[in-house]
Amino acid sequence: MITRRSLFALSFTAALHAAPKRPNIVMIYADDLGYGDLGCYGHPTIKTPNLDRMAAQGMKFTQFYSANPYCSPSRSALMTGRYPARNGMNVVLFPDSKGGLPPEEITTAVLLKQQGYSTACVGKWHLGHTPNFLPKSFGFDSYFGIPYSNDMSPATSANQNLQRRNAWPPTPLIRDAEVMESEPDQSQLTRRYTEQATTFIRKSSAAKRPFFLYLAHTMPHWPLAASAAFKGKSARGLYGDAVSELDWSVGEVLKTIEQSGEGKNTLVFFSSDNGPAPVGLEGGSAGLYRDGKGTTWEGGVREPALAWLPGRIAAGVTTSAFATTMDLFTTFSQLGGARIPADRVIDGQDISDVLFRNAEGREPLLFYYNQGPLRAVRKGAWKLHISACNVAPGVNDRRYQDLAKPLLFNVEIDPSEKFECAAKNPETVEELLSLIEKHKASFTPGRAQT
Amino acid sequence: MITRRSLFALSFTAALHAAPKRPNIVMIYADDLGYGDLGCYGHPTIKTPNLDRMAAQGMKFTQFYSANPYCSPSRSALMTGRYPARNGMNVVLFPDSKGGLPPEEITTAVLLKQQGYSTACVGKWHLGHTPNFLPKSFGFDSYFGIPYSNDMSPATSANQNLQRRNAWPPTPLIRDAEVMESEPDQSQLTRRYTEQATTFIRKSSAAKRPFFLYLAHTMPHWPLAASAAFKGKSARGLYGDAVSELDWSVGEVLKTIEQSGEGKNTLVFFSSDNGPAPVGLEGGSAGLYRDGKGTTWEGGVREPALAWLPGRIAAGVTTSAFATTMDLFTTFSQLGGARIPADRVIDGQDISDVLFRNAEGREPLLFYYNQGPLRAVRKGAWKLHISACNVAPGVNDRRYQDLAKPLLFNVEIDPSEKFECAAKNPETVEELLSLIEKHKASFTPGRAQT
Repeated sequence: MITRRSLFALSFTAALHAAPKRPNIVMIYADDLGYGDLGCYGHPTIKTPNLDRMAAQGMKFTQFYSANPYCSPSRSALMTGRYPARNGMNVVLFPDSKGGLPPEEITTAVLLKQQGYSTACVGKWHLGHTPNFLPKSFGFDSYFGIPYSNDMSPATSANQNLQRRNAWPPTPLIRDAEVMESEPDQSQLTRRYTEQATTFIRKSSAAKRPFFLYLAHTMPHWPLAASAAFKGKSARGLYGDAVSELDWSVGEVLKTIEQSGEGKNTLVFFSSDNGPAPVGLEGGSAGLYRDGKGTTWEGGVREPALAWLPGRIAAGVTTSAFATTMDLFTTFSQLGGARIPADRVIDGQDISDVLFRNAEGREPLLFYYNQGPLRAVRKGAWKLHISACNVAPGVNDRRYQDLAKPLLFNVEIDPSEKFECAAKNPETVEELLSLIEKHKASFTPGRAQT
Repeated sequence: MITRRSLFALSFTAALHAAPKRPNIVMIYADDLGYGDLGCYGHPTIKTPNLDRMAAQGMKFTQFYSANPYCSPSRSALMTGRYPARNGMNVVLFPDSKGGLPPEEITTAVLLKQQGYSTACVGKWHLGHTPNFLPKSFGFDSYFGIPYSNDMSPATSANQNLQRRNAWPPTPLIRDAEVMESEPDQSQLTRRYTEQATTFIRKSSAAKRPFFLYLAHTMPHWPLAASAAFKGKSARGLYGDAVSELDWSVGEVLKTIEQSGEGKNTLVFFSSDNGPAPVGLEGGSAGLYRDGKGTTWEGGVREPALAWLPGRIAAGVTTSAFATTMDLFTTFSQLGGARIPADRVIDGQDISDVLFRNAEGREPLLFYYNQGPLRAVRKGAWKLHISACNVAPGVNDRRYQDLAKPLLFNVEIDPSEKFECAAKNPETVEELLSLIEKHKASFTPGRAQT
């Protein structure tokens, strides 16, 4: 006989089975790592066995984008699911900057914390370094790291404006909102960040709380550094050493997750904030993509990206589904049970169907901003540049020039942007130009920070 | 009580366990496929799930070389384990060529056949097309395919010398030594080759004989073609269609091997004869490497390479061990129980320790010949060009010029050959120049074919 009580028990059990357990979420972000710098993306001499393992056990993206080719804006998009031009962070912050991510912006950490997640930010934040702009103001229970780039102090900078640069403080290492150390030994950062991250994972697991970890490494951003265990060990030089240590760190995180019994309930996502920096052999490789950091060529914003969740994400899958860091805001938040804010434009979309069902994903659509203005747009296979830098071969200059005639590429057939084809496709040029106009007209810029 | 008889039985069993069974060997060779053209090497829009599976279940090489950036010579090196300058095939054959691989050359097929292997060659041979030079003269029990490139007939060639070209016969499709068809429908070749290959695998397995299959696809060499099931299906255009069909073919071969019960005793090796051809969007991508086919830049000779033998080759390993197609001659032959000929110089070395024990392999050493002369040498991390083409950025011209000052690159730190550093390393330049002199002095050229 079925009683009311057993009916209730039945439906409760069914609900438990229907809704998968909310996963822990670990976002690992590298700094200035190129698309071509990992073994699983074809680099010949940088050994990345742990990231290769993530790829072999999980999903590798080939059309994954950062929203911007520079640090601060790309990180703001990851955190808010919105273009930097919307969230006010369409700018790179320096130690003399007063602003940061506007307090009205809502981050994944805020949403997940509301859902009962433990949250921690470890590493490079770069969305404001004065007390009100640090991670604890944006949903993170704790913070440990250098709040901006590692070349932003009198001792480390290559900025030619000596007066400005010499007025900057020494590089701060911050815990929560307090400066713990000045000009810390950068060769120890990857190791120290990793210790913070693994301790947080163990503690959260022991406390039986779901957790969100945002581990944003300082490496391999210039000036490069690696600890004694890695320095001089890679055939790729100091850059390879730094990436190898990053790879080691990923291995430690995966191992800690598995040893804590969270291996089947933790989504780990790995990517980079923008393409490789133009600093000679101390910068990385964009693989088959054109150019790199600081440009809106594909090399500036097309990133390596790996997703790992054994049992829910299929093993060894290479996906060409289009996705962006903004989509991670939406996806992470919804996986954690949060509702996406309805009072503002969110540019990110849920990519769960790509992750868990290997779906093809949506049609590509990306507006490429850099150094302020909109420079290019991609819709489907087509990408139109209305303003560009380094158009002539061999030229390396990050200054943009408006183009009298826009440049058109089919980046599905020609991902390296070698074969310009505007003259052959006037209708596509018109379509993309009007898409840009429509986008601009509909756009309410954020409170621009400085 | 241990009798003599049981002692014998014991040692016989021990010997059986000590020597692993001689594996079947399947060599799949693509034509003009670039290092960057597979999902497992980072291509964004060419979907290669079967090759990605080979990589996830096996070993992926990042420093694997062809011996030459053109078809005929690179294939001769694969077959003989010797530089084309030694084996007489330092030349590309055309339909009006009279020569081929000299009969005194010994191929892997000859050695494996002597050890009781069934042997078959399917696809593009390109080591001579007159009856005495076809695969059956070099150890293969059977042959099916187009004996040279698919752009070598009056109907398909882009050769500007119309008088020469118009004197060529229509493209022949040969079985053993007989022309079966003229100018066959190229869109059916990948499918037809695959049928021949899988039939051979099934028959050899049923006959309980070890087998050696050399499956050398005509695709994705220009002019591109794909069957109806693949044409227009890839986001990468016709080139992607052709590579997708190649990937399908690899999947059929793997499936047939597994269904025949040979899955744990068949070494499958996949690679390409040279880098991507300079034919615009109909050519492939060398990934992060410079230039492509027809040049001695890394893009000309650095190839994708995958090795698969579940249970004996570890899964999901990316190796940066240096290896060449010439090593496959030695490795395949020894795996099959053959002795390597001692009456001639063999340039290949056994790479079993890389394949089965993930060893680091030997120090890189490669002499880069093209269009005749030696153009460059790599020893360890260093590569010295003494003659080069396309030195100026953006120039696309396959004519070589001798260099007054050799160009030096560290291809482990700088695999893209962007940062020339001869002036900073005069001792290395001297060392490599004297290595070239030593090599030249010790070298007995083969009987050059035309």
